[in-house]
Amino acid sequence: MYVLYFCVFALFYINVTAHINSLNAVLFNGDYEFIDLSYPFDANTIYWPQAQKFQFTKQIINEGVNWYSSKEFVASEHGGTHLDAPYHFYEQGNFVGNIPLIDLIVPLIIADVSSLVNDDPNFVLYKHHLDFMINDNFGKPCLIVFKFGWSKFVNDKQKYLGLGPNNTLNFPGLSSEVMDWITTSYKNVVGVGVDTSSVDPGASKDLPVHKLGSKAGLYNIENVNLSRTIPEYGCTALVMPMKIAQGSGAPVRFVAICPKQVQTEF
Amino acid sequence: MYVLYFCVFALFYINVTAHINSLNAVLFNGDYEFIDLSYPFDANTIYWPQAQKFQFTKQIINEGVNWYSSKEFVASEHGGTHLDAPYHFYEQGNFVGNIPLIDLIVPLIIADVSSLVNDDPNFVLYKHHLDFMINDNFGKPCLIVFKFGWSKFVNDKQKYLGLGPNNTLNFPGLSSEVMDWITTSYKNVVGVGVDTSSVDPGASKDLPVHKLGSKAGLYNIENVNLSRTIPEYGCTALVMPMKIAQGSGAPVRFVAICPKQVQTEF
Repeated sequence: MYVLYFCVFALFYINVTAHINSLNAVLFNGDYEFIDLSYPFDANTIYWPQAQKFQFTKQIINEGVNWYSSKEFVASEHGGTHLDAPYHFYEQGNFVGNIPLIDLIVPLIIADVSSLVNDDPNFVLYKHHLDFMINDNFGKPCLIVFKFGWSKFVNDKQKYLGLGPNNTLNFPGLSSEVMDWITTSYKNVVGVGVDTSSVDPGASKDLPVHKLGSKAGLYNIENVNLSRTIPEYGCTALVMPMKIAQGSGAPVRFVAICPKQVQTEF
Repeated sequence: MYVLYFCVFALFYINVTAHINSLNAVLFNGDYEFIDLSYPFDANTIYWPQAQKFQFTKQIINEGVNWYSSKEFVASEHGGTHLDAPYHFYEQGNFVGNIPLIDLIVPLIIADVSSLVNDDPNFVLYKHHLDFMINDNFGKPCLIVFKFGWSKFVNDKQKYLGLGPNNTLNFPGLSSEVMDWITTSYKNVVGVGVDTSSVDPGASKDLPVHKLGSKAGLYNIENVNLSRTIPEYGCTALVMPMKIAQGSGAPVRFVAICPKQVQTEF
């Protein structure tokens, strides 16, 4: 009798979970929301001082009954919300076009260190700042995005970049100690994001964090739009760069799919 | 007694499904694969004859111990695997930057009409060709991608575009009858994709399919890479255009997340 009950329940369970297990059924069940972590490309998009800004080079508008619009544009690979391919700082590294999709669709971890930064453009993130994360689930494939609290300055380019004389820059970033820790201790971290214009601090001259990450096969996402608070765990990252075959970088559409209520499980 | 059993099973069920329901748990459980439906951007990328091709305008390589590479590029919005925003053919339509994410992450339907096309560049798709789809789940939000079987010609630009004298074009496409049917009968279709260079047939001069779709608020994805067979139902579309704020179109990273075995449920 018990066996019969069990079988009935088991069949019921298998039947229902087959539906629940469908990706589309889960994704569109109303529990998740899509959050854009990308800034738009327009005349105000943040670029480093020497880089080619995004601009339209041609704007066709055909007036009248056959109205249409078509445009052409120019841009640096490295401006706005963009991806650095491993090739950016490592000649043997992957171009943008060669980064496998399994590294671009991954669980997302937000490391919110903004209260430590406290708006200080000279802040550098060291390993001891991350003690609170030591026991978290870095062992699984993931993208880590560091939140320095810099998105609130994005409409003030001078402040966001910390522009000084001779185009010097000044904004918070990672120490090489932290990148070394990520690339040697947690092999499953596939990329690192920041809500500033560089994973290295703005004042860095030799960019060791870029070098370490590139050599280890990690990509960076820079100028991540973290204007909105999102869960530190439980979101899925969609990292979708323009597929520039031999790109050292590319504009990236970076979207988080997040549970509407914070969930702590993987 | 029955009630007790039911409660125990119910608790068990809720507990297990809480985990099963997690998006990351479903997405990374090994049952799904990520399939790139985008062609790369390089010197061979397909553009219409008059459009600005993708090209690097600057390629910096800093040799030596501080090796790095950084590039700049120019391109038409409308070439390679790209998205047409509703604004492309409708002045009041959304720019690329205004298309909501809920229209860009949707269930994907592949309408494989390649056996009807049979490599005929003069083929035009009419409503009667789609009778086999009438009873399918168009009622739910979705992206429909029409497979004309044209991806196999992508490395032969002359053939793929059907280039003739005075840059005339000749390849298969939709009739305005089909686009009218999609936009009036099935309000939840958010976009239309094709594995050719235009939703209108190559020989079309006044592009009625573009006009109808734009006015109805639909986007197009053109030059979809359907080199690989993917399930007609059960995949999820990630339509991730470069976020060009006032774009009439943009390069798009278009990825399908598909069950490794074909599933027929929604």
